[in-house]
Amino acid sequence: MPTYADLSTGELEELRGQLEEEYAGFKAKELKLNMARGKPAAAQLDLSMPMLDIIASDADFKSEDGTDCRNYGVVDGLPEAKRFMASMLDDEAENVIIFGNASLNIMYDAVARCWMFGTLGSTPWCKLDTVKWICPVPGYDRHFGVTEAFGIEMINVPMLADGPDMDEVERLVAQDESIKGIWCVPKYSNPGGVTYSDEVVTRLAEMECAAEDFRIFWDNAYCVHHLHEDAAEQDHLMDIGDACIEAGNAHRYFKFASTSKVTFPGAGISAMAASPENIAEIKARMGVQTIGHDKLNQLRHVRFLHDADGLARHMAKHAAIVRPKFELVCQKLEAGLGETGCGTWSNPRGGYFVSFDAPEGTAKRIVGLAKEAGVVMTGAGATYPYKNDPKDSNIRIAPTLPPLEELEAAMDVFVCCVKLASVEKLLGA
Amino acid sequence: MPTYADLSTGELEELRGQLEEEYAGFKAKELKLNMARGKPAAAQLDLSMPMLDIIASDADFKSEDGTDCRNYGVVDGLPEAKRFMASMLDDEAENVIIFGNASLNIMYDAVARCWMFGTLGSTPWCKLDTVKWICPVPGYDRHFGVTEAFGIEMINVPMLADGPDMDEVERLVAQDESIKGIWCVPKYSNPGGVTYSDEVVTRLAEMECAAEDFRIFWDNAYCVHHLHEDAAEQDHLMDIGDACIEAGNAHRYFKFASTSKVTFPGAGISAMAASPENIAEIKARMGVQTIGHDKLNQLRHVRFLHDADGLARHMAKHAAIVRPKFELVCQKLEAGLGETGCGTWSNPRGGYFVSFDAPEGTAKRIVGLAKEAGVVMTGAGATYPYKNDPKDSNIRIAPTLPPLEELEAAMDVFVCCVKLASVEKLLGA
Repeated sequence: MPTYADLSTGELEELRGQLEEEYAGFKAKELKLNMARGKPAAAQLDLSMPMLDIIASDADFKSEDGTDCRNYGVVDGLPEAKRFMASMLDDEAENVIIFGNASLNIMYDAVARCWMFGTLGSTPWCKLDTVKWICPVPGYDRHFGVTEAFGIEMINVPMLADGPDMDEVERLVAQDESIKGIWCVPKYSNPGGVTYSDEVVTRLAEMECAAEDFRIFWDNAYCVHHLHEDAAEQDHLMDIGDACIEAGNAHRYFKFASTSKVTFPGAGISAMAASPENIAEIKARMGVQTIGHDKLNQLRHVRFLHDADGLARHMAKHAAIVRPKFELVCQKLEAGLGETGCGTWSNPRGGYFVSFDAPEGTAKRIVGLAKEAGVVMTGAGATYPYKNDPKDSNIRIAPTLPPLEELEAAMDVFVCCVKLASVEKLLGA
Repeated sequence: MPTYADLSTGELEELRGQLEEEYAGFKAKELKLNMARGKPAAAQLDLSMPMLDIIASDADFKSEDGTDCRNYGVVDGLPEAKRFMASMLDDEAENVIIFGNASLNIMYDAVARCWMFGTLGSTPWCKLDTVKWICPVPGYDRHFGVTEAFGIEMINVPMLADGPDMDEVERLVAQDESIKGIWCVPKYSNPGGVTYSDEVVTRLAEMECAAEDFRIFWDNAYCVHHLHEDAAEQDHLMDIGDACIEAGNAHRYFKFASTSKVTFPGAGISAMAASPENIAEIKARMGVQTIGHDKLNQLRHVRFLHDADGLARHMAKHAAIVRPKFELVCQKLEAGLGETGCGTWSNPRGGYFVSFDAPEGTAKRIVGLAKEAGVVMTGAGATYPYKNDPKDSNIRIAPTLPPLEELEAAMDVFVCCVKLASVEKLLGA
């Protein structure tokens, strides 16, 4: 079968007619479907319900060191919570700080601290004329939102199959002292599903940076979010901490993780890890900001998930729910678009997204068409800084929230919209 | 009986001998008592244990508007949580934002936002050469810690019987554009137990400020923390919001409150209220920092405390535990020091502290003596910016944490230390 690009104008016009009819049929159904955000489905949230019975009125409220977790104190987290989150962060408990309910908040505050106070003796970023940031694209919209809020100039660097284009990253950071950081979702990246190769991790750790206070913001949001239980079908990521220490750049990384997509988004716990010097500085500063985070919630999590093994068992239950949705999305894309040439997409082994690259100049049109037919997608452009996808091509598909049958209906609409927008483009309409 | 100041040197020397003997007796007991921090006692925490059974695995997890509180979203708080916290904040639900577990964190972030971005169009404070702040003294050490961390120059203004010395406050803010804010604990103040009079509230709202972006940080930490259930024995505070609107300075106030000392410190909920324009700006900025705070904990709180009446009933139970401790402290001080002339103290109708003013130049010595005898007090000077009490006189007594019998033992030690340090001072030792 020929791709759409091979069709004659007449064939395309006929096709457009068919697709418009199909699209009108979808519209008539008055669907209300949502593939916009990486939100767990209700069935996933149900997995963690037993956690809510653990800290009941008859529970033991003492942490392992005897702290009454109902009262003030313990600014950096319970010992058992640090140990637990250290397993997610691939680090030692003593290098871990437990925070509140969201790693986004930790990252924002980490940027804010550097902005207001500098870090390890460097000039506060707010005192500089220009601060720039490396943004692998496509990437996570909320990361870009943070740097944009600070007026940090964001520089796009393409994501390749094994991580950011390191030739370009190395070239940029070597020459420009105003480049202070890079956003990384190093495992099952948002949205591409890419896991950084050992070479990329090593190059990030070793590269020459003009800025002494350059920081890798290592948002390991999907560290345990595999689609498969079998280790052979999971991605593996080299630890950035080890790599940075090895390279003699021990202060270069801030690692972040949370249980937002393990237990309950909004009611989870979050943590960061960094070098002892970074951690000491952050503790001193955050000791002014808070007396401590929610220790009862820390207890709840540790007593429910226990350790890395307990976490893996729990995540396998998530995978059983999530995997069929990813499979469905990829099947629908393959069946509907495989032979048309209208786009390419990722087929990740973990994370929360399928990344779809539509024909140039059609992403906004596709998302608009889908919306009009009752299917809400992540806004086109959202995966780029300033919401500006220069090719107007990338669309993030978030399959987790809708039940399978809704997802199926939504993907049928999406495929139709992609085809229609592609035909329109070819016809120059 | 003569005061110590009326005694002869010989009498003082004899007294010192007696007191040193008494003190040695206390030391021999190897006490370990703590009156340092305003922490609720275990018996108070027990009052809120039933709250922990409310959000169990069989609970309804939907908020009143149908939101699944286990998932992402609702950046500014559940409608029922806003309504509940509005009752604490003396405001309308639509002017309220619900935050995480600590109002200190909200205040820090509020300063940080002004620092980094300015507010309602003003210059970011980080771009100014000097930022100054009015600090009524004695005051709350953690407030002073926040402004100190930002390098904000703190100006002491004395607390009088009905609030800060407003003549002085008005004089300062009228002439100096770099004065950007004032810390206020307007009800049962920390540590003095003072509630601002209507006149003080009105003058704060009406005063001419050289800085257009001057903000009153209204930390109503003890708004419902009365020692008595009878309204006639409670202090009443005029609402700063109403006063500012009335005065045509609607954007001047940020109000803060939390349930830290209502339910569980560290596992409570917190909130702020301000003008619609301030709230809109803060929501926009915090929407970059977080996807939302812990909604399950918001549900827990609202379903446990219900409304202002439920809150008042709950706080009456706290009062029944706390009041005898305040009474004991004041009895001990009166019995031990009443006729000696060695100090004066507050006798508040709410809050968490008794403020003790020792003879000038003796506070550090008293706290040191107490510590050596196993009684930890708040550090002398802590109630002043930069931990510098120019008269070395004020000591904050926090009676809530120890059980009554421990408090009694601690107060005996404290009274002995006050007497001994006073005698030493009179003898010029």
